[in-house]
Amino acid sequence: MDRAITRRFGTAAALISVLAFVTTVAQAADPLPSWNDGRAKQAIVAFVAKVTKEGAPDFVPPAARIATFDNDGTLWAEQPMYFQLLFALDRVKALAPQHPEWQEKEPFASLLRGDVKGALAGGERAMLDIVMITHAGMTTDEFEKIVADWIATATHPVTKRPYTAMVYQPMLELLAYLRANGFKTFIVSGGGIEFMRPWTEHVYGIPPEQVIGSSIKTQFEMRDGKPVLVRLPEIDFIDDKTGKPVGIHKIIGRRPLMAFGNSDGDLQMLQWTTAGPGPRFGLIVHHTDAEREWAYDRHSSIGRLDKGLDEAQARGWTVVDMKGDWRTLYPHEKK
Amino acid sequence: MDRAITRRFGTAAALISVLAFVTTVAQAADPLPSWNDGRAKQAIVAFVAKVTKEGAPDFVPPAARIATFDNDGTLWAEQPMYFQLLFALDRVKALAPQHPEWQEKEPFASLLRGDVKGALAGGERAMLDIVMITHAGMTTDEFEKIVADWIATATHPVTKRPYTAMVYQPMLELLAYLRANGFKTFIVSGGGIEFMRPWTEHVYGIPPEQVIGSSIKTQFEMRDGKPVLVRLPEIDFIDDKTGKPVGIHKIIGRRPLMAFGNSDGDLQMLQWTTAGPGPRFGLIVHHTDAEREWAYDRHSSIGRLDKGLDEAQARGWTVVDMKGDWRTLYPHEKK
Repeated sequence: MDRAITRRFGTAAALISVLAFVTTVAQAADPLPSWNDGRAKQAIVAFVAKVTKEGAPDFVPPAARIATFDNDGTLWAEQPMYFQLLFALDRVKALAPQHPEWQEKEPFASLLRGDVKGALAGGERAMLDIVMITHAGMTTDEFEKIVADWIATATHPVTKRPYTAMVYQPMLELLAYLRANGFKTFIVSGGGIEFMRPWTEHVYGIPPEQVIGSSIKTQFEMRDGKPVLVRLPEIDFIDDKTGKPVGIHKIIGRRPLMAFGNSDGDLQMLQWTTAGPGPRFGLIVHHTDAEREWAYDRHSSIGRLDKGLDEAQARGWTVVDMKGDWRTLYPHEKK
Repeated sequence: MDRAITRRFGTAAALISVLAFVTTVAQAADPLPSWNDGRAKQAIVAFVAKVTKEGAPDFVPPAARIATFDNDGTLWAEQPMYFQLLFALDRVKALAPQHPEWQEKEPFASLLRGDVKGALAGGERAMLDIVMITHAGMTTDEFEKIVADWIATATHPVTKRPYTAMVYQPMLELLAYLRANGFKTFIVSGGGIEFMRPWTEHVYGIPPEQVIGSSIKTQFEMRDGKPVLVRLPEIDFIDDKTGKPVGIHKIIGRRPLMAFGNSDGDLQMLQWTTAGPGPRFGLIVHHTDAEREWAYDRHSSIGRLDKGLDEAQARGWTVVDMKGDWRTLYPHEKK
């Protein structure tokens, strides 16, 4: 260490300034360590630099730095089926002893025999029956506890890991990086809003009030002089496809600056976001990694990415090649 | 100034520390200068001190410090009728040249003759006709501009001041005081969400994503390859009475720590808030000041406060006596 500096500022002050310098360099060198240095990472960093540089032509004030993220397939995995559906199946099993009639009644009978495919053969009607029986009929406080207990203990059928361990490490870094640059990060998911809120703050650093999703109706009631909100078996809002920009408008009330998705369910959110005036950024996570995860796109029944892949080309959205762009996939693989 | 201090730190540094000290003392002495030192002010300050004192039994982490405010009659005035209704009446006049048929058609004919009472004699149906014709049929961007233009130029029929000058100075101070103490402030209004969002950030420091209100449905459409959201003449959600806790749950997803209202429309929000576990705070603004504003409660058709006044007693909510508790009413009266 330079003796003149040590003398002028004292040892402690010099140490602090050196530490600060080292930290700054480390951050500047790699804010996204789990991303390989490809086009996707470069596009993200260049965009953030552009909109956060005060006085520059593309500068955007912090209040307008809204970034929206799809959840299933974008922030965490979604195969072999949406995790919320796996939650519903677990709930059917847990509730079965109180419903002996389910042994004879579809879609429950098939489910309880372990025949998921057979249960879902009943199409949208069967799916809705399963969702409503497992998601409605209790108070909001009760449902929150059911979800919190499940997410703390349930494990994924293939990886045998907790579902919250199947979030994508590069996206966790991206969320933190955007927040460090003054962005407010939101989830905009086709999944159930109350299925996500109990754990998004802990897992993603996204508080409940920044989660948008599909919902069922609730009703205010007084029970023994105490107010409760009861979950009704009635759809309130489907936050998917054209519903995503509608949901963003309903809850955020302004157009995002950046939007991140992985399937055609995110197409309209990306269109709406990137059609805004001034700089905008759209990104699609393309599941190309059959070895570390799953590879699927145009022909998948879950997380189908078909039109989105074409529009990304036409509209200049960034496409993440999961296999090539992501050095690390899950947090536990981090070195 | 003490010469030893001046010598040790240099004049500039000493000046800064003295200024900082003076500012701190001034803030500590009176965070709410437009509130007289009565029970209401004392209750607010005591509650905030209690929940923000780290290590204390009632400490609440910043993430859970949610405060919800009704708008009409709580943050700004609401007489002689809700300002959004005055907006709608102004819009009917502005649109009349494009609708010659309105000269013969109620409720528009009465309105255009200046007979508001006659127009509203048609009850809910007439009101809905007026709201839908003035609030639906355009894109969300177009409506935002209509509201922004109106709020910038329209004046109140009695005071002749801009509507945004009829916000309550004590409540502006309260909003700022809570935010300085780590609270996130939300509006939860029976009024239209898109009628408020264009100006709440500027006037109250509350960003669009922290505004909850009544809404009509919107629909995503592609027009010449550009995505738009079109406002439909169809109610989506009424954020009033039992709708307020439902709206809070929908958009915030957690129970507020503090809630502020002024009418029976806020009753369920106050019940829901103060029924939560741990410390909670409910407050009702009672319009008692016929001289500086309007005095009304149990028998008013606008902002009726009847059950709320009784429940405040029973449940220990703070009641603001506008005449006695508020030293200053509007910002322009500030000395």
